[in-house]
Amino acid sequence: MLQVGVLGATGYAGYELVKIIQRHPQAELAFVSSQSYAGQRYSAIYPCPYEMTLVAPDEAPLDKADVVFLCTPHAASAPYAKQAVDAGAKCVDLSADFRLHDADIYAQWYVEHPLPEMLDQAVYGLTEIYRDQIAETDLVANPGCYPTGPLLALYPLLQKGLVSDSRIIVDAKSGVSGAGAKASPTTHYVNVNENLSAYKVGHSHRHAPEMEQELTLFADKPMRVTFVPHLLPVTRGILSTIYANFGKATTVSDVIALWQETYAGEPFVLVCQEGKLATVAHAAHTNRCAISIASAGAPGEFVIVTAIDNLLKGASGQAVQNMNVMFGLDETAGLLA
Amino acid sequence: MLQVGVLGATGYAGYELVKIIQRHPQAELAFVSSQSYAGQRYSAIYPCPYEMTLVAPDEAPLDKADVVFLCTPHAASAPYAKQAVDAGAKCVDLSADFRLHDADIYAQWYVEHPLPEMLDQAVYGLTEIYRDQIAETDLVANPGCYPTGPLLALYPLLQKGLVSDSRIIVDAKSGVSGAGAKASPTTHYVNVNENLSAYKVGHSHRHAPEMEQELTLFADKPMRVTFVPHLLPVTRGILSTIYANFGKATTVSDVIALWQETYAGEPFVLVCQEGKLATVAHAAHTNRCAISIASAGAPGEFVIVTAIDNLLKGASGQAVQNMNVMFGLDETAGLLA
Amino acid sequence: MLQVGVLGATGYAGYELVKIIQRHPQAELAFVSSQSYAGQRYSAIYPCPYEMTLVAPDEAPLDKADVVFLCTPHAASAPYAKQAVDAGAKCVDLSADFRLHDADIYAQWYVEHPLPEMLDQAVYGLTEIYRDQIAETDLVANPGCYPTGPLLALYPLLQKGLVSDSRIIVDAKSGVSGAGAKASPTTHYVNVNENLSAYKVGHSHRHAPEMEQELTLFADKPMRVTFVPHLLPVTRGILSTIYANFGKATTVSDVIALWQETYAGEPFVLVCQEGKLATVAHAAHTNRCAISIASAGAPGEFVIVTAIDNLLKGASGQAVQNMNVMFGLDETAGLLA
Amino acid sequence: MLQVGVLGATGYAGYELVKIIQRHPQAELAFVSSQSYAGQRYSAIYPCPYEMTLVAPDEAPLDKADVVFLCTPHAASAPYAKQAVDAGAKCVDLSADFRLHDADIYAQWYVEHPLPEMLDQAVYGLTEIYRDQIAETDLVANPGCYPTGPLLALYPLLQKGLVSDSRIIVDAKSGVSGAGAKASPTTHYVNVNENLSAYKVGHSHRHAPEMEQELTLFADKPMRVTFVPHLLPVTRGILSTIYANFGKATTVSDVIALWQETYAGEPFVLVCQEGKLATVAHAAHTNRCAISIASAGAPGEFVIVTAIDNLLKGASGQAVQNMNVMFGLDETAGLLA
Repeated sequence: MLQVGVLGATGYAGYELVKIIQRHPQAELAFVSSQSYAGQRYSAIYPCPYEMTLVAPDEAPLDKADVVFLCTPHAASAPYAKQAVDAGAKCVDLSADFRLHDADIYAQWYVEHPLPEMLDQAVYGLTEIYRDQIAETDLVANPGCYPTGPLLALYPLLQKGLVSDSRIIVDAKSGVSGAGAKASPTTHYVNVNENLSAYKVGHSHRHAPEMEQELTLFADKPMRVTFVPHLLPVTRGILSTIYANFGKATTVSDVIALWQETYAGEPFVLVCQEGKLATVAHAAHTNRCAISIASAGAPGEFVIVTAIDNLLKGASGQAVQNMNVMFGLDETAGLLA
Repeated sequence: MLQVGVLGATGYAGYELVKIIQRHPQAELAFVSSQSYAGQRYSAIYPCPYEMTLVAPDEAPLDKADVVFLCTPHAASAPYAKQAVDAGAKCVDLSADFRLHDADIYAQWYVEHPLPEMLDQAVYGLTEIYRDQIAETDLVANPGCYPTGPLLALYPLLQKGLVSDSRIIVDAKSGVSGAGAKASPTTHYVNVNENLSAYKVGHSHRHAPEMEQELTLFADKPMRVTFVPHLLPVTRGILSTIYANFGKATTVSDVIALWQETYAGEPFVLVCQEGKLATVAHAAHTNRCAISIASAGAPGEFVIVTAIDNLLKGASGQAVQNMNVMFGLDETAGLLA
Repeated sequence: MLQVGVLGATGYAGYELVKIIQRHPQAELAFVSSQSYAGQRYSAIYPCPYEMTLVAPDEAPLDKADVVFLCTPHAASAPYAKQAVDAGAKCVDLSADFRLHDADIYAQWYVEHPLPEMLDQAVYGLTEIYRDQIAETDLVANPGCYPTGPLLALYPLLQKGLVSDSRIIVDAKSGVSGAGAKASPTTHYVNVNENLSAYKVGHSHRHAPEMEQELTLFADKPMRVTFVPHLLPVTRGILSTIYANFGKATTVSDVIALWQETYAGEPFVLVCQEGKLATVAHAAHTNRCAISIASAGAPGEFVIVTAIDNLLKGASGQAVQNMNVMFGLDETAGLLA
Repeated sequence: MLQVGVLGATGYAGYELVKIIQRHPQAELAFVSSQSYAGQRYSAIYPCPYEMTLVAPDEAPLDKADVVFLCTPHAASAPYAKQAVDAGAKCVDLSADFRLHDADIYAQWYVEHPLPEMLDQAVYGLTEIYRDQIAETDLVANPGCYPTGPLLALYPLLQKGLVSDSRIIVDAKSGVSGAGAKASPTTHYVNVNENLSAYKVGHSHRHAPEMEQELTLFADKPMRVTFVPHLLPVTRGILSTIYANFGKATTVSDVIALWQETYAGEPFVLVCQEGKLATVAHAAHTNRCAISIASAGAPGEFVIVTAIDNLLKGASGQAVQNMNVMFGLDETAGLLA
């Protein structure tokens, strides 16, 4: 059995990881760690039957783990990643610390990077696109929740040069678990329920440069996004409605055919048939990414709709998928397709 | 225009009061006060167009108000009540400070009472039952949100001696606004949504002694309640399912007839017809209390169901109803029936 | 008291109208009519205390009404409008029958128009824009729920020629009451809850030509919209996220200043301050339209966010606002600002 | 691989079964059948990637199945059960047809029983209580969703004679998936959301006699229930708040100790620690039943709270648990503990 350690195990991504590993046929928990709840049993934090005791991060037995998942905050994660790798473990970092290849851009959107020299070591963990490099690396930078859906949908279109415009609009709606487990006015039930609100609109959310980095790599030319996230009154799920302009001869069928070809055999990519659009329900409580497309009403103008579960394909599910790839396991082990 | 002051105006009861007074044809806001948000405009706290500036409680011009509503915490409210009354205003206290007639019982459930000598001055503000005393007093103790529905339903039944048992079970379900505006794990969207939980069950919630005080007065014999509140994933509303034993000859029709007689002409009591049960939707966003009854399956055993909006008939709506009575206005002014 | 008739009184818009008129200080219900529920009391249909009996549409005493609201389906409404006007009443039609000025466009999106000769008589009931004509007419075509927010936000911008592009993207999210009271898989709780779905995307929803008609009139040049509505898991409210390109010198402050000038004194238009965005909570349960703007990240690119309650400013609230204008009443009578 | 057939595969229990079997390591679908959707692909009915074609029930190849699950309506199920067993398959019936041992009681609550002679053959499928008989039978009557939680909690208490009263009050709250997939006013989003309603209260819901049958068997003396179900605005989950009187010497600790002893080693029974109460979140999306207890405030009076997922431990999860027992598989195979 693969020995798994989780640092930051009491946030939502941590809880989701704990649940997946508890049910994974080839992995088990070596330790779960939490700064705030060290010494408590896991069942005291979440409504579940897991009775293991949380350890402080500094007392986590990194050497006992084959793989360490980091659900720790950005800037705090990188040093843990170094410790884990130095201790001989593989590491999947769910924070933003290794997602951006450029330390300057990281500094612009987060803080000064704590370990810029490690950036080259990390592979961006969008499994379907970077599977080969993930299989070889010790350090995976698990993607942000918002980028995953748009990137999977746009990858083959940009690669084939179908997208005619350098600007793409992503209007995204995320469930509240994406805002984290910390209680705040933003996540108060009364403020979220029967409401919908946009936040960090335009080009101010940290997932914007992450999307732009990857879209630019896919297209091999500079791409920019207008990104408007919304806080949706559901617990989990992200629906992204994407406005993109293609060459005028491109049809909806062309795009679907390209997706089907690109993602043939992928257990977690669900290409919706023509006339059907992805909904949150296609993806919630699974590791799926559903992708779909329709005409925007004029030649060359399209609406792409993607859906994931932000805690699974958007975080812990994809993290385990990456673990499965890193250790040569069945990629779907522990995950719901 | 009646001049209205609101202390503690930025909690949910305060916000609801502000909205009602803004729309009240014979009243207007003299001041709104908040400890935490003093100096800010009201529209910075809630999504509304109210641009008045919040003042610190100690700077509230009590002398400018004809009536002061206290949405301040228990033990803090009583001294403000004294100040308001001393300044010549009438006072409706939405805290628990004057609900319990007995300072010892108050001390047992809250803290030492700050002003026990004022207890006799206060009238329990269940409008339909104590209307005459409310019209005469300077100080109303606005009822707790949970007691209002069960008390209105049980009042005539106890008065007439219909209830054969001295124990009544109240299984109540409250919307999350009842838990207050403070962010906490309890009110985090992800913890409430798609969930239901019981809390302070049996005889441990502070509204239990309040219900027992009134039921005992109604029955003129000691009554006790088993009280199980639940946190319901809705923003507003309380549904109470009440289990009570009556004499075996009593019928559902008898009870409905008694209610109709007791509450004839009451604008805010909605007696459901036989075969219909009160739902949260009967009361939400109104100042109504809906009451209904069905057989529990055996002679003499009954299920009573009541519904109110916890922020209106369960708090600010009833508070304004009391203000209307205290000042001889149309009792429905500013309120939705 | 103004005598009010409601045809189609048991749909959601009808229920909302009934509630408003019941509370309106200068209007009262002359009749409520329903095809399906004729002969039943209103309280049998909705959880409310309204005990009037529904009449069949053909037995509705149109001659007793000063004003008739039509909440009947498109194509069925026009003939009722004619009957009402012929009977000497004023008429506010909440269906689509008189919204589009061009019978051919109507035929393209709905069916053959039943009374094209009446089209000229009708005024498009976006109150803030067409108030003067509304005051003079007997027949108001109440706007669709989706157009109201975007049109109010875009009106002065197009009038002033600020919008540089002829294409505007409207990504809209509507509460489920917008889908009507009829039970269907689309409105089944389990299909909506914890979900989000786009529908009739691009240029296939009937409110697209309605928006285009008005935007074109405002701009005095052809405008087109890409329109993607989503079904949002809330009961009421529409949030519209609008992507529009302006001249590069235009700033967020310019737009806010223009809105404040245009809508100064309007009781129902809430212009959000710079840095704040409209949310559903700004508008729900009121007749407000909240409008707001932010940069989309590059010069000349903007994100506009608008919010209304689809049943109020998006339907019955605006309908009563129009009635108030038509009869010279206080425009806010019966409505919450 | 075990060959599994599902009749009535397009209701919610059917969908849940299909999902479980798709992920079950030792079982696979032989056929899925539906009256209404025969000929369509499963992915046309639900947002999922399952592309098998639905067959009409009469064309279902019963002989190809090792086990047949019936998610068909009561009275329709029994004949299918006979066909399945005659064809050599084992059968788990999720309808009510074989739950009540007495055909007269069945007739009183449902209709005349179609196959009373088969009643003796069936075992009531409350797995933890009847595991041995389930292992031996060809026909399991899967329990109703409401009884499962209360029965598991009360079983050892009644067996030990702890319960002093012959009447037990069950105040239950169920998610909307319990009302079935058929669209109706009852399940319309707008009627459920922000609402709570009681229905079939007292002794009128069909799960009342089912609970009474089992409680009477457990206690070996006549037991009766007052049962009040409520429709809760969540998709899945049942919380039952149970009021029961025990001998005055019984303590909360006694009961918890008895539960821990009775259910030691049970993978799906979660006994909450003293001071903690079961919530819907303890059980949702798992096959768990969480049980908990607190004092009701007076000696001998208790409040028991149980939680299950109505679609899993309350239907399809327990059905697969029973299948696992019937075929000697690991009882947790395919299920989440």
